Amino acid sequence: MAANELLFLPLGGLGGIGKNCTVLEYEGEILVIDVGIEFPSEEMFGVDVVIPDFGYLVENQERIRGIVVTHGHEDHIGGLPFLLDRISAPVYATPLTRGLIEVKLNAEQLRRAQLQTILAGQTARMGQFEVTPFHVNHSIPDAVGLAIRTPAGLVVHTGDFKIDHTPVEGEPADLGQLARLSAEGVLLLLSDSTNAETPGYTLSESRLRDTFERVFAHADGRIIVATFASLLSRIQMVIETAAAYGRKVAVAGRSMEQNTAIAQRLGYLHWPADTQVPLSAVNDLPDEQVVIIATGSQGEINSALARMASGRFREVRIREGDTVLISAKAIPGNETAIHRNVDNLFRRGADVVYGPPAGLHVSGHAAQEELKFILNLLRPVYFVPVHGAYRMLVHHARLAHELGMPPENVFVLDNGDRLYLSLEGAHLGEPIPAEGVMVDGDTVGDVGPSILRDRLTLAQDGVVVAKVAVDGRTGKVARQPEIVAHGFVYLPEAAELIDAANAEVVQVVEAYQGGSQGYDANQMSLIVERRLGSFFRSQTGRNPVIVAVVSVV
Amino acid sequence: MAANELLFLPLGGLGGIGKNCTVLEYEGEILVIDVGIEFPSEEMFGVDVVIPDFGYLVENQERIRGIVVTHGHEDHIGGLPFLLDRISAPVYATPLTRGLIEVKLNAEQLRRAQLQTILAGQTARMGQFEVTPFHVNHSIPDAVGLAIRTPAGLVVHTGDFKIDHTPVEGEPADLGQLARLSAEGVLLLLSDSTNAETPGYTLSESRLRDTFERVFAHADGRIIVATFASLLSRIQMVIETAAAYGRKVAVAGRSMEQNTAIAQRLGYLHWPADTQVPLSAVNDLPDEQVVIIATGSQGEINSALARMASGRFREVRIREGDTVLISAKAIPGNETAIHRNVDNLFRRGADVVYGPPAGLHVSGHAAQEELKFILNLLRPVYFVPVHGAYRMLVHHARLAHELGMPPENVFVLDNGDRLYLSLEGAHLGEPIPAEGVMVDGDTVGDVGPSILRDRLTLAQDGVVVAKVAVDGRTGKVARQPEIVAHGFVYLPEAAELIDAANAEVVQVVEAYQGGSQGYDANQMSLIVERRLGSFFRSQTGRNPVIVAVVSVV
Repeated sequence: MAANELLFLPLGGLGGIGKNCTVLEYEGEILVIDVGIEFPSEEMFGVDVVIPDFGYLVENQERIRGIVVTHGHEDHIGGLPFLLDRISAPVYATPLTRGLIEVKLNAEQLRRAQLQTILAGQTARMGQFEVTPFHVNHSIPDAVGLAIRTPAGLVVHTGDFKIDHTPVEGEPADLGQLARLSAEGVLLLLSDSTNAETPGYTLSESRLRDTFERVFAHADGRIIVATFASLLSRIQMVIETAAAYGRKVAVAGRSMEQNTAIAQRLGYLHWPADTQVPLSAVNDLPDEQVVIIATGSQGEINSALARMASGRFREVRIREGDTVLISAKAIPGNETAIHRNVDNLFRRGADVVYGPPAGLHVSGHAAQEELKFILNLLRPVYFVPVHGAYRMLVHHARLAHELGMPPENVFVLDNGDRLYLSLEGAHLGEPIPAEGVMVDGDTVGDVGPSILRDRLTLAQDGVVVAKVAVDGRTGKVARQPEIVAHGFVYLPEAAELIDAANAEVVQVVEAYQGGSQGYDANQMSLIVERRLGSFFRSQTGRNPVIVAVVSVV
Repeated sequence: MAANELLFLPLGGLGGIGKNCTVLEYEGEILVIDVGIEFPSEEMFGVDVVIPDFGYLVENQERIRGIVVTHGHEDHIGGLPFLLDRISAPVYATPLTRGLIEVKLNAEQLRRAQLQTILAGQTARMGQFEVTPFHVNHSIPDAVGLAIRTPAGLVVHTGDFKIDHTPVEGEPADLGQLARLSAEGVLLLLSDSTNAETPGYTLSESRLRDTFERVFAHADGRIIVATFASLLSRIQMVIETAAAYGRKVAVAGRSMEQNTAIAQRLGYLHWPADTQVPLSAVNDLPDEQVVIIATGSQGEINSALARMASGRFREVRIREGDTVLISAKAIPGNETAIHRNVDNLFRRGADVVYGPPAGLHVSGHAAQEELKFILNLLRPVYFVPVHGAYRMLVHHARLAHELGMPPENVFVLDNGDRLYLSLEGAHLGEPIPAEGVMVDGDTVGDVGPSILRDRLTLAQDGVVVAKVAVDGRTGKVARQPEIVAHGFVYLPEAAELIDAANAEVVQVVEAYQGGSQGYDANQMSLIVERRLGSFFRSQTGRNPVIVAVVSVV
């Protein structure tokens, strides 16, 4: 690394929109932006969450001058407990983001985080980095972008953003601040690519007000609104509409209760007088006075809405006359679960309003025209699209090309790539390992490809355990083998198959002549496993995992 | 069942768009419409396909007068081999549909099917049912709806349909025939609900011609088009566009090869002179003369496109300059796999055109305005929305209400419901069992909820087998227990955990005092399994399936 060069090193957030974590480094000092998690894809059986590989941060922890968090979504704050189990570093966040971080950390993690509040427009110094947050619009309040002044030049990180000229909560994104940064000259722009495939502008959150009004005006019975617990402006809008129509509002679902409580305490959620009721009170109210805001817009199996849809939610039994609004976009991969919920709600007699034609959701991320606006306004020397799957980064880079940026100054990168920058030029260094790390249960990182392969096989065809006792002197089986199966065949109806399998085991065991070292139970186990494998494959077309336990008696 | 009543009994196709299978019954005679499969949802681990419960058809096989098939998609023909393994019955289908059925059946199934060709406009008699197919538009040629005359009245089944006034292949749907049926008076309408949630009209297939032209006009390198192998009109359009731009066309992927061969033989696919080349020839052609039509539009892991995207397709290596068109809609549940393909294709340097903004796909199913048109044209006495998830059926029923049909004459049903109809009235009978039957490997129907639960547990946390030998006289372990694990922890790095688990096993085994009947190895196994379960849960937060094999030596 040459003197006066800035290093940009993404540890997460590229190749996917989750587990955001970005490193900037200048003269040995490290600034970290966001520490998020990613939810596992469907083939990651048993995995709870995926976190960035923190190896580089742990190794270089004395050089970390600060961790700045742009907003309070899980893909930006969810990795903090895991990182703070391994290092100490000051964490900087705006008030609501800080509140959401605080409830995630245990006492020891809190101590190590030395949480600091930052505010839009106020500069905080972290080593040689001068960080000035600026206000942006997003699907959670108190979201900021970052202007980061370094001796190498000015870096602008948009954070997750859209430009909402008529937001429901707070102010429009601070375009004046962006204009001033532009005048200062921007070395590097890092900009949100989530909607880089979407033409046009993202609609304002306030456009949903009409839709809610229309539904509330027509509903005779209870109204249940499912949305993201972090979408506080949406929740605020529902509360206000409810109040306007003389309804009271309760919240359902743990994250909804927790987030609305924090937001209310910190002044980010306002309840008109006599509107808030506990969930336990809704059954005493007339139906036409009830609104319930619930978790479960993604069909999550234990969310409030999924439990209502399947009749597992004691406090709220769905019935004829209920109107359910799903105010969210389906995150890819969740469609089946969401559709199942909708079907079940209809079966119980509810009217369900959902999906794009319902007009009940707008995105929290900037679309192509907004992205072009940022690019044109800031005119950076270098541009790296961040926060996106590969195809989104490619689309975002193309927008920059279309606007006339020299392609050699636009970098579509992968996690772990190292980009060295100065006004003199940019070059890539050796990448470092930055594969996602899987968390399963209490254990971080021990689940890898081989365990996932085993789980896939087990999921497909189950497991068979064969217990065989061999008489060491005669080489005959000492008693009938026993076969136990899980997830393979339904044993009560498979007696013939199991009897035939037992006969195969007896045959192969008694044909064994012993190795050169005499009777070898391990070798015998392998032989039995191989024979049972091919027997079951030919008889059933299935390939269960087979474990033979041979004991010599 | 009163005299002169018609029975409508859906065995599949409701509550989902798959495994269509409908029974009509009059005076003891049975007509079956379509025999399809459904692809398993993601939680059906290891299940290959789901078929209707054929119990009713097997039990009443002598009463079956015919099986009529509306078109050649898997969700309408895929169940035939399974049904024909159990019964004999004449199967009626239009020429292309018949060709697609023939390649699915083995010799014995073919014999039992006594295949009969039917043609739109020509009446075939099956017992007291007079069946007259009529031409409709759909995403496969030779699709028909059915006019079924019975002594109880006229039944109209739309089949899967849209109304395409400018189809790429064949004629527009036969509206004249529908008008004549209307004049005759319709007792019961069964109509496709797939797009009942979609406002407006479904666009004509020929609208895609412009999009293909535009892409072909601009592409400098090879063009690869991924689409459904059954979408022969789309394939025809790509072939014609290729010919117009001086390109040659090869097909890739087994079902693509098979379907295009059948369609070509039967005259449903036409190749301009010198356009068709084998896949092995494309590497000898200049890039700008190559088009490859491939399977894999849904991201299927072993499809041609997925193999190209991941570098596993020997004949076609994706490289800079290639343009890949994905000409299909994402079927819900497939989004992640499709996105992964797109990302991988971009990484290899291809340009990828995909998704709704690309304008590369139109649906094969009628949207709301077309559905209203059919309802208004036919004015049936009774209406049952078919071919749809519950929410789609509800939306379709609402359209009928909006058009003034009395709600008591519109039936949103489930598979297995029995609806008895005559001009005098309609009533529901006792439902019969009609849950989907899962096929796994060579075995039909043995996979049920308990096996799926086991597979889910195994998928989440794997399996542990503990082998313990106990000295029958002393009650001490005869040697160190052995633990084998699959999909649980990565054993090379878990030596400490396994040692501790072994110690737990020794402790619990040696504390055992024996039952009243002396040493009981089965009871011992249960005790070891329980102890290991709670040990691993407390140590790892995981709940593997545990099998203990205790032998007394």
